[in-house]
Amino acid sequence: MSKDIKEIGVAVLGFGTVGAGVVETLLENGDLLERRLGVRLALRAVADLDITTDRGVVVPEGLLTTDGAAALARPDVDVVVELIGGTGIAKKFILQALAAGKTVVTANKKLLAEHGAELLAAADAGGADLLFEASVGGGIPIIKALREGLCANRIESIYGILNGTCNYILTRMEEEKLPFDTVLKAAQAAGYAEAEPSLDIDGHDTAHKAAVLATLAYGQIVPLGKVRTAGIRGMDAADIAYAAEMGYRIKLLAIVRRGPDGVEASVQPTLVAHSHQLAAVSGVFNAVQVRGDVVGTTLYYGRGAGRAATASAVVADIADAALALRAGVRHRPLPAGAAAAGDAGGALRFCPPEAIRSRYYLRFAMLDRPGTLARVATVLGNHGIGIDSVIQHEAAPDAEYVPVILVTSAARAGELDAALAEIAAADGAVQGDAVAYRIEDFE
Amino acid sequence: MSKDIKEIGVAVLGFGTVGAGVVETLLENGDLLERRLGVRLALRAVADLDITTDRGVVVPEGLLTTDGAAALARPDVDVVVELIGGTGIAKKFILQALAAGKTVVTANKKLLAEHGAELLAAADAGGADLLFEASVGGGIPIIKALREGLCANRIESIYGILNGTCNYILTRMEEEKLPFDTVLKAAQAAGYAEAEPSLDIDGHDTAHKAAVLATLAYGQIVPLGKVRTAGIRGMDAADIAYAAEMGYRIKLLAIVRRGPDGVEASVQPTLVAHSHQLAAVSGVFNAVQVRGDVVGTTLYYGRGAGRAATASAVVADIADAALALRAGVRHRPLPAGAAAAGDAGGALRFCPPEAIRSRYYLRFAMLDRPGTLARVATVLGNHGIGIDSVIQHEAAPDAEYVPVILVTSAARAGELDAALAEIAAADGAVQGDAVAYRIEDFE
Repeated sequence: MSKDIKEIGVAVLGFGTVGAGVVETLLENGDLLERRLGVRLALRAVADLDITTDRGVVVPEGLLTTDGAAALARPDVDVVVELIGGTGIAKKFILQALAAGKTVVTANKKLLAEHGAELLAAADAGGADLLFEASVGGGIPIIKALREGLCANRIESIYGILNGTCNYILTRMEEEKLPFDTVLKAAQAAGYAEAEPSLDIDGHDTAHKAAVLATLAYGQIVPLGKVRTAGIRGMDAADIAYAAEMGYRIKLLAIVRRGPDGVEASVQPTLVAHSHQLAAVSGVFNAVQVRGDVVGTTLYYGRGAGRAATASAVVADIADAALALRAGVRHRPLPAGAAAAGDAGGALRFCPPEAIRSRYYLRFAMLDRPGTLARVATVLGNHGIGIDSVIQHEAAPDAEYVPVILVTSAARAGELDAALAEIAAADGAVQGDAVAYRIEDFE
Repeated sequence: MSKDIKEIGVAVLGFGTVGAGVVETLLENGDLLERRLGVRLALRAVADLDITTDRGVVVPEGLLTTDGAAALARPDVDVVVELIGGTGIAKKFILQALAAGKTVVTANKKLLAEHGAELLAAADAGGADLLFEASVGGGIPIIKALREGLCANRIESIYGILNGTCNYILTRMEEEKLPFDTVLKAAQAAGYAEAEPSLDIDGHDTAHKAAVLATLAYGQIVPLGKVRTAGIRGMDAADIAYAAEMGYRIKLLAIVRRGPDGVEASVQPTLVAHSHQLAAVSGVFNAVQVRGDVVGTTLYYGRGAGRAATASAVVADIADAALALRAGVRHRPLPAGAAAAGDAGGALRFCPPEAIRSRYYLRFAMLDRPGTLARVATVLGNHGIGIDSVIQHEAAPDAEYVPVILVTSAARAGELDAALAEIAAADGAVQGDAVAYRIEDFE
């Protein structure tokens, strides 16, 4: 307990959008933070390869540098904030900092999802903290809620809208009845989507975040391979309209929960009933519903991305780090600490992605000829998939194929995939691949 | 740093509904908590004057006692959980525990709101922690979010539905079109309302919680006298219907925010637009919207009361306490630490309750004679209160008085009170007192 520590030195690596937000928050709310914490968060260095672009914040003289390694190695730097992104130099810097016993704060969900075990082991080896509130849910303090606020609970389920880009696209497609490509281009022009949008729209970013949440909930690194992942690329506005007709909104939903076959993790376009709170989350906002065995259902909502919201989460981590460093302790046992045993006291079972069960919304372009629906239903039935309802609108006079929507009973993902492949391979009954989206009942 | 501490001793004072939930959670999820925390939360004593009523949980042999003072004084008790309620013996026990340097965990918002300064001073004097996550929002980790997760933010506003009893009554009144008294009696029969319901339905409980949230947000004890408080007692189902017609739902809403005249705190029946997230919070659930200058708008939702949800929050506090005690430090600087200066670096200004400005929904029983509305409008105008809209339905053929609804422009509460008193005192223009509810635009 070194109560005489008055300042905690901070180096920010990566001076892009979020980095600039962190620097701005540390400078503008620095006095407030010092009064709240009893210790000053002192900015010592801001490193980036590009230190000439105007980021809209005035960095004090002499703090900007292009030498990240030197910045993190400074003896007056106690907390290293990694906002470079990716799994290359970011990982190298994090490992260097942890090896030097410095606390690392990062927003890098990709790195955590892909190399979490290695990073947590490095933190343990260095006797250092690794904090990552900003990696999921932007400014929403969801990591803290899961790890601390709900620590008395076995986590039964987590449902999250975790990617602002996808939610923005889906919201605009629905509200303005626009096609996917048009909205994606608009989102790219507005800076809500990257020029190379795959990370977002193919569901990978959401899968990274789901893996981080699952790791916290179940005390064990969840391999990305265990996360059934699909994105929203190429979604047809017709499906959004059909879903609305049935009382649902389509969201890219991350689901992590205890199922009969172990912990299930999936990211898929999902039909959510209009009456459910998550259906009301629109635009770039994120929300996470967490169900615990003691607390019941809770929900957390806020901006999931952006300079300021993400900075709020990063600075909250720096604050936790500062208090722990001042006290001479680590902040909180890391999930890795309990990982060896899993939260059930034994190794955690993961449900194989193909064994995850749910209801599905299926849309086929079906040959408009008697018997076609029966043939499709037979194939589904052979795979143990029942049909709860069918919607077929009157076909255009000269249409050869008509859209038919089937709502299935609960089916295993693997069986569904096999049935759809069989139907697609059958001669001419359906055109192209079926659309298959999950329907979530939030049991 | 006494890393060799393997157990933290806990005494639970008050073995009622929540006390039993805490004991149950410590026993049932004790192994899980130990794996997560690296230290065992060991139940050492459970004290209550009544230890014979069956609480639905089996307390280990020898732990039940009627001697609370002896339980908290045990040398093997490190954390004292106060769940007795009220401001008498509960306060005495808390002060004794803090004086002995023991961490106190409490859910007692009334005690915090009325004697918070004294308790925080006692905690400082004893070098002990006082934790109170369960005092607001039941199982929602809202205290932790405000104090830690959002610590980088100046808090701009807090809007909360904080009393499950009132929200349950309002929800049933609206959904089933039932009168207030009928629903109150049903709530009492179901155990959702106390036999003496004043604390809930007159808004006091919500005011206590608003004061606690304001204290955390602004670093200074907010006196209850600064909280403009009104409850839902005797609400007329007609107003719920009129509000619905106008696109609003009526909620008992706590509002704490920075206004031009200082920090405003109020608890009032409030019209919330159907499209706002808080309007969708129904039944016994609670929700809190927090706006920070960095993070923007965030929202937290969950069960606001009840045995298990409240126990989840209490045990989260015990966990924080255990980690801090094991490390030999205090958990987190308390608001009192920053109180002397306020969060702006100087004494905090409170807006006098009568100076709080908002729009209002007013309903008068107006004499059905030409000129009456003009007379009422004139009095309002004389107090600087404009009228944005008027709704008057066709009167019953033989009615002497007809209901007229006025929506005002933003008005000071004091001016409104004065105008309504003047109108009520005028001879015969209106019958009885006007109904006056706040309309919140969530600027």
